[in-house]
Amino acid sequence: MTKRLGSQTVFLPSKPVILSSASVVGQKESQGPLKDCFDFLSEDSRFGAETWEKAETKMLNKCFSIACDKAKLPPSALNYVLAGDLLSQCISSTFALKDSGIPYFGLYGACSTMAESLSLAAMLIDGGFADNCCAITGSHFCAAERQFRMPLEYGGQRCPTCQWTVTGAGALIISGNGSGQRITHITTGTITDAGIKDVNNMGAAMAPAAYETLKTHFSDTGRSPDYYDAIFTGDLGALGHDIVQDLFKNDGVKLGANYMDCGVLIYDLQTQDVKAGGSGCGCSASVLAGHILSAMNKGIWKKVLFAATGALMSPVSSMQGESIPGICHAVAIESEGA
Amino acid sequence: MTKRLGSQTVFLPSKPVILSSASVVGQKESQGPLKDCFDFLSEDSRFGAETWEKAETKMLNKCFSIACDKAKLPPSALNYVLAGDLLSQCISSTFALKDSGIPYFGLYGACSTMAESLSLAAMLIDGGFADNCCAITGSHFCAAERQFRMPLEYGGQRCPTCQWTVTGAGALIISGNGSGQRITHITTGTITDAGIKDVNNMGAAMAPAAYETLKTHFSDTGRSPDYYDAIFTGDLGALGHDIVQDLFKNDGVKLGANYMDCGVLIYDLQTQDVKAGGSGCGCSASVLAGHILSAMNKGIWKKVLFAATGALMSPVSSMQGESIPGICHAVAIESEGA
Repeated sequence: MTKRLGSQTVFLPSKPVILSSASVVGQKESQGPLKDCFDFLSEDSRFGAETWEKAETKMLNKCFSIACDKAKLPPSALNYVLAGDLLSQCISSTFALKDSGIPYFGLYGACSTMAESLSLAAMLIDGGFADNCCAITGSHFCAAERQFRMPLEYGGQRCPTCQWTVTGAGALIISGNGSGQRITHITTGTITDAGIKDVNNMGAAMAPAAYETLKTHFSDTGRSPDYYDAIFTGDLGALGHDIVQDLFKNDGVKLGANYMDCGVLIYDLQTQDVKAGGSGCGCSASVLAGHILSAMNKGIWKKVLFAATGALMSPVSSMQGESIPGICHAVAIESEGA
Repeated sequence: MTKRLGSQTVFLPSKPVILSSASVVGQKESQGPLKDCFDFLSEDSRFGAETWEKAETKMLNKCFSIACDKAKLPPSALNYVLAGDLLSQCISSTFALKDSGIPYFGLYGACSTMAESLSLAAMLIDGGFADNCCAITGSHFCAAERQFRMPLEYGGQRCPTCQWTVTGAGALIISGNGSGQRITHITTGTITDAGIKDVNNMGAAMAPAAYETLKTHFSDTGRSPDYYDAIFTGDLGALGHDIVQDLFKNDGVKLGANYMDCGVLIYDLQTQDVKAGGSGCGCSASVLAGHILSAMNKGIWKKVLFAATGALMSPVSSMQGESIPGICHAVAIESEGA
């Protein structure tokens, strides 16, 4: 039986369940508007480690443990873990999970990794290949700065279109059994390149990918934006969020107040000096695991579309004159009986 | 219906078909023992591009085109492409496929990427989520040298345990329909860390992961090594190949002449000055697409176990004193009616 719907969407007849979600964030995120939603708030940006990369590793490991604990499952009950991060060769995911003993699929989806890992985990379960999977990702401001821009010691200036990499991680345990929010549809994005080369404007680089994936999702499912109680893009920030609204407006489609962006929600853009908002794998991951699923569990939203966004570039590609291609994967999540 | 078998293996009831395979290699590989197997041999290591990273991109793009042509499918007939490479943030895969218009899952499995992409592609098809998928990866010696070691201009010396990153790419089109070699079982590896820190001895770092995955595959399926006409590890080289044989010997299991390593096969270790053999994502990918599947199509082997291996490290993790964890994923491939 085919589970395909339109050009890029699949539906999951078994509707895999989100058994648990865990979120871990750093100091700045602990001072933001969503501070009450996260499972673990660290005052120590180093998470007790000697380097920023090892701090990111410890944060991911902590997040994984909390997710297993909340699901009341030992790691050995997981058939697969799907993980990735922003660091070169995805070392924080590797080292965070290397002692878990779980079959491991490493992913690279840049800041879209939460939606990519969730998509594959849900399909592995619905396809009969797994009973339980973990989807996990995260990012660390200080590790990302020296990976993509400059070491903190350099004291680089930030422009108004810049975004702030979230120090945070999110992990979800997905299962074929149990109760919880359910994954119903997945729209997998194509790489979308609007030709933007400004590495200080990731929101503009990723917004066209978000627009394309959302538009395709609506067309493939026959749904309009108001089908959903809430639609979230991953980390477009204030500028990218507005670009997506404008692109839909050109099509005569209104994306209203139910359309939000995780990068806008996680910080107070007026007082926290994060310029255009949050970014990084940990942005949409911690907001989904902490804020969105908590609200769904409370019954505030019943139908949510989660569309994490990523910029598929590296400092090398940008220095060689390449543009910044974007990608966006969308996952539809519904409460039982919604 | 569960498709699980033992602790880490799944079987695929529909046995997805390998519709086509394509291989592209560089100059050194064109002078090696497998030169007659590859689809495209480039005399120009730059593939007409200005930088090594862009050369890798062009090589992957060429390989993708050949795979589609051989499958007689336009790219639009592919539901997903699963791709990854060794470069930071996987830029060669991104830029090679950014204009394809195909829903894209980016992977990072280091040199195990061919088996990882093949595993996920086959499960997406067997699960009813896709009709056709492309699994693709590659590596380029010159891009990898400056990514992981030193720029070529430095003229670094190589020790006897060193391996030579293959300039090559492999792509497979997997389908739910048609005829060809079939994917029957997948054993997904866990991250295995033997504590080795010598970045000039990747074979020894990855061999324990290959041993663990092969052992688990035999145990999960109830098969012994001689069930297969041929068993291939990805890029352990001469040293790693012998370590795997020794580890099995300790268990009283004989891995005989039907056990080979792609990194040993692709070069003439006596005359091509590649030290312990070939490595890189492109090693097992081009040997699978070029050599192994050609031999299966000719009826030389009917039952093959393909076990690509990867070292999940980065220069940063090694400089911070971390060990080199390995991973290995195994895919069982059988001829029709085998």
